[in-house]
Amino acid sequence: MNVPKKVRLVEVGPRDGLQNEQQAIDTGTKIQLIEQLAAAGLGYIEAGAFVNPKWVPQMAGSAEVFEQLKRAEHVTYAALVPNLQGFERALAVNASEVAVFCAASEAFTQKNTNCSIEESLQRAAAVIDAATTAGIKVRGYISCVVGCPYEGAIDPAQVAYVAKRLFDLGCYEISLGDTVGVGTPIAVSQMLAAVSDNIPMDKLAVHFHDTYGQALANILAALQLGVAVIDSSVAGLGGCPYAKGASGNVATEDVVYLLDGMGIEHGIDLPQLASTGRWISALLGRAPASKVAQALAADIK
Amino acid sequence: MNVPKKVRLVEVGPRDGLQNEQQAIDTGTKIQLIEQLAAAGLGYIEAGAFVNPKWVPQMAGSAEVFEQLKRAEHVTYAALVPNLQGFERALAVNASEVAVFCAASEAFTQKNTNCSIEESLQRAAAVIDAATTAGIKVRGYISCVVGCPYEGAIDPAQVAYVAKRLFDLGCYEISLGDTVGVGTPIAVSQMLAAVSDNIPMDKLAVHFHDTYGQALANILAALQLGVAVIDSSVAGLGGCPYAKGASGNVATEDVVYLLDGMGIEHGIDLPQLASTGRWISALLGRAPASKVAQALAADIK
Repeated sequence: MNVPKKVRLVEVGPRDGLQNEQQAIDTGTKIQLIEQLAAAGLGYIEAGAFVNPKWVPQMAGSAEVFEQLKRAEHVTYAALVPNLQGFERALAVNASEVAVFCAASEAFTQKNTNCSIEESLQRAAAVIDAATTAGIKVRGYISCVVGCPYEGAIDPAQVAYVAKRLFDLGCYEISLGDTVGVGTPIAVSQMLAAVSDNIPMDKLAVHFHDTYGQALANILAALQLGVAVIDSSVAGLGGCPYAKGASGNVATEDVVYLLDGMGIEHGIDLPQLASTGRWISALLGRAPASKVAQALAADIK
Repeated sequence: MNVPKKVRLVEVGPRDGLQNEQQAIDTGTKIQLIEQLAAAGLGYIEAGAFVNPKWVPQMAGSAEVFEQLKRAEHVTYAALVPNLQGFERALAVNASEVAVFCAASEAFTQKNTNCSIEESLQRAAAVIDAATTAGIKVRGYISCVVGCPYEGAIDPAQVAYVAKRLFDLGCYEISLGDTVGVGTPIAVSQMLAAVSDNIPMDKLAVHFHDTYGQALANILAALQLGVAVIDSSVAGLGGCPYAKGASGNVATEDVVYLLDGMGIEHGIDLPQLASTGRWISALLGRAPASKVAQALAADIK
């Protein structure tokens, strides 16, 4: 099977994960989570977001997180920023990198950020310009790359267009998000084929939600096309923003188990990661949304 | 992506599923479950087992199930039989087909059936001979085709050997079971490659447990090699016999969603199937162990 020898995992639990939890987590616990994830071997951690706390109260305290965090060498601590103001706040607390976001769906963009795709690209461009001046790298997220809760199936050409725009604006990597988790392997492959017509495969990442349980199958399809950067969330933190109880981000533990089984390098200590996942899940009052975490806890071999 | 145009699903919920549930289900409910599965489009249903009710009380009443069941045309109602005595009971109630089982692990065979692999093949041979005389087709299961709870990793050559023996004895199809659910796509592909050196791919089925969440990724790998028969269990019935709370058989709903997304024919009505899964899960006092069932219930699109 033709897959990359090595994969880089982007841990989004402290941001995309906690942002979608009902229960807000205090700053000290967030810092502990991030430090534990770094200790487990994660080399890239999205540690917070500089968004309006009125809309996203879970991300309040991100400045304190970045300020108080004991940083490990060789770990990238990234911040999500929606606009120039957010970027300035991230810069002030020395975020290693920032991430901007767009969606491939016009309706989703309107509902989520109250602007058009074109306007959201302009907002991203302003951040990218400022970041470039400041010598900060920018990662670009695209939501709804397979399906949209409002528009249904999304044309791969539309994803390719938005990805190319973000890449040309200066994002060094584009993370392609199946926000609703409706994707299946052929649709994912077709989307990746379209996007990689414009952008080298080694500049692409995949970001799957496991709402319909398809995330690992989709990751396998992406690996087979040469994608070597995978976003995931410890313990599947986050749930689904569209329905209480449904799965959210694919669990980092489940991805690591897949990679281990396939002999793909990733640098992460699975038992330590699973222990971190159990700890943060217990604080949220539930079991980890990771089958690997549950099976390891039960010592199933 | 090179995958089969059409897949046959083998529904094992009423047998492999219910057999591993803590709570025994009454005969009337089992019959209702099987009839609902047939109505949802399942063409092959493992409806019961003729095993010792002292060891497997959940399968007591299998004779009544077969006798009282309203049979749909074109649906195969199969029975698992461990030996000649079990076969005679299955024959007496007009099971459409029977299934025999072996394991690719010597230690598992000893612990599970108190005999060697060789002896288990002889027991299977006796059933196959009797069934052939009676004009009944026999399906062969092999457990532990990737890993074993006692031996760890299993050599693909050992799986290939047991599969070839069962096939040569007269099984028309060999179902390869990752009983513990530890398999990942490359290991599964290597195992399938070894087995299909001896047996045509169209005589092979895969039977995955989702203990480590890898089942759909493994099914994708199997489809890519041309496997076109998949065992699954409605609502993921069964759990894991090795640990309370852990996942068992891959959920039929999740497999159907994968196949739908990939445009692979299967003949099953997903909403009707999911409704059956919710009904039987409610009787067992829990939510369906199927992310698709949960996402559909929440109407996530």
